[in-house]
Amino acid sequence: MAGPRGEYRKSAQRREQIVEAAFAVFAKHGYTAGSVNQIARTVGMTQTGVLHHFEGGKTALLKAVLERRDERAEQVLAGRTGLDFLTGLVEISRDQAGLRGAVQLYTILSAEATDSDHPAHGYFRDRFTRIASAVATAYEQAGRDGALREGVDPRAAALSTLAMTEGLELLWLNGQDVDMAEDIRTHINTFLAEKI
Amino acid sequence: MAGPRGEYRKSAQRREQIVEAAFAVFAKHGYTAGSVNQIARTVGMTQTGVLHHFEGGKTALLKAVLERRDERAEQVLAGRTGLDFLTGLVEISRDQAGLRGAVQLYTILSAEATDSDHPAHGYFRDRFTRIASAVATAYEQAGRDGALREGVDPRAAALSTLAMTEGLELLWLNGQDVDMAEDIRTHINTFLAEKI
Repeated sequence: MAGPRGEYRKSAQRREQIVEAAFAVFAKHGYTAGSVNQIARTVGMTQTGVLHHFEGGKTALLKAVLERRDERAEQVLAGRTGLDFLTGLVEISRDQAGLRGAVQLYTILSAEATDSDHPAHGYFRDRFTRIASAVATAYEQAGRDGALREGVDPRAAALSTLAMTEGLELLWLNGQDVDMAEDIRTHINTFLAEKI
Repeated sequence: MAGPRGEYRKSAQRREQIVEAAFAVFAKHGYTAGSVNQIARTVGMTQTGVLHHFEGGKTALLKAVLERRDERAEQVLAGRTGLDFLTGLVEISRDQAGLRGAVQLYTILSAEATDSDHPAHGYFRDRFTRIASAVATAYEQAGRDGALREGVDPRAAALSTLAMTEGLELLWLNGQDVDMAEDIRTHINTFLAEKI
């Protein structure tokens, strides 16, 4: 019997399928060249059917896809501080190596979004600012715990860590011989007196 | 009198204008979403007119645009070795800060090209491999000159330098407070006994 609860569950499953299809299409073609029509075809629906679930259209699909990626990282880092937080960054990088499609999607979107007209422009600017700030807080805590090397500026170390993470992902996707998790660990350790 | 030589010059100028337009269109929309038609409109030509100069179509335009960027960097680095070469990398990063469009173009293309079906996939893979190798050679020379810190692996230092360069460009384009030239100098110096 498909009562309201059954309908709700069915609709949530549909949304989930659509987000997965959007993920695959944007990862392959980027946001600009990807289309709602391609996403609809992937999931065996009409374009109108997809827009019934995502009234905001392509930008709403983009938002749903981006939020999904952040949820994963936030789960790993929840409640962690100092060296424990920095170790979490290494764990996230290790996960990424098994999620090539997601890394590719994110790399393409963050590059496209450098254009100020792109719908995710504000999202990426704010996201990088937020992450840099969280990582700086972790280095500060490491400093209070006596685990930071003398003379290291937590804010500069955070931006450097973020830049290295992004750069390693790009090189890895472009077939270079990098081990994202171990290379980011090595980089973070250059700032630490107590290694992770 | 427009003899054969005049015709040749006129054609070369046209090619130049088309490459500049391709540069602008790809920088704004990426390669996948950018079109020969947009490029033709930018330069006030028909699509057929553009294809007369670039028979290979959109991929030929992409190749011309990518080669132009490399020419600049090669001019800066020509004949330089060791610390002098590494200082050249800092100079190139400083130039980039005045070439936002070019950096944006390259960032979008290198992200799109992570897809193995993209026409520039091989180009970027080979380009990163070639640069990593050239930078490793510079660190090796620095080592022979006694300028490398003990225990530094030239090859690992080169990949790290390349990753940092790419990551800093992405953060800079996304509105973060980075000084590409000084930040890459700081990073290179972490590998050196004699600072640049």
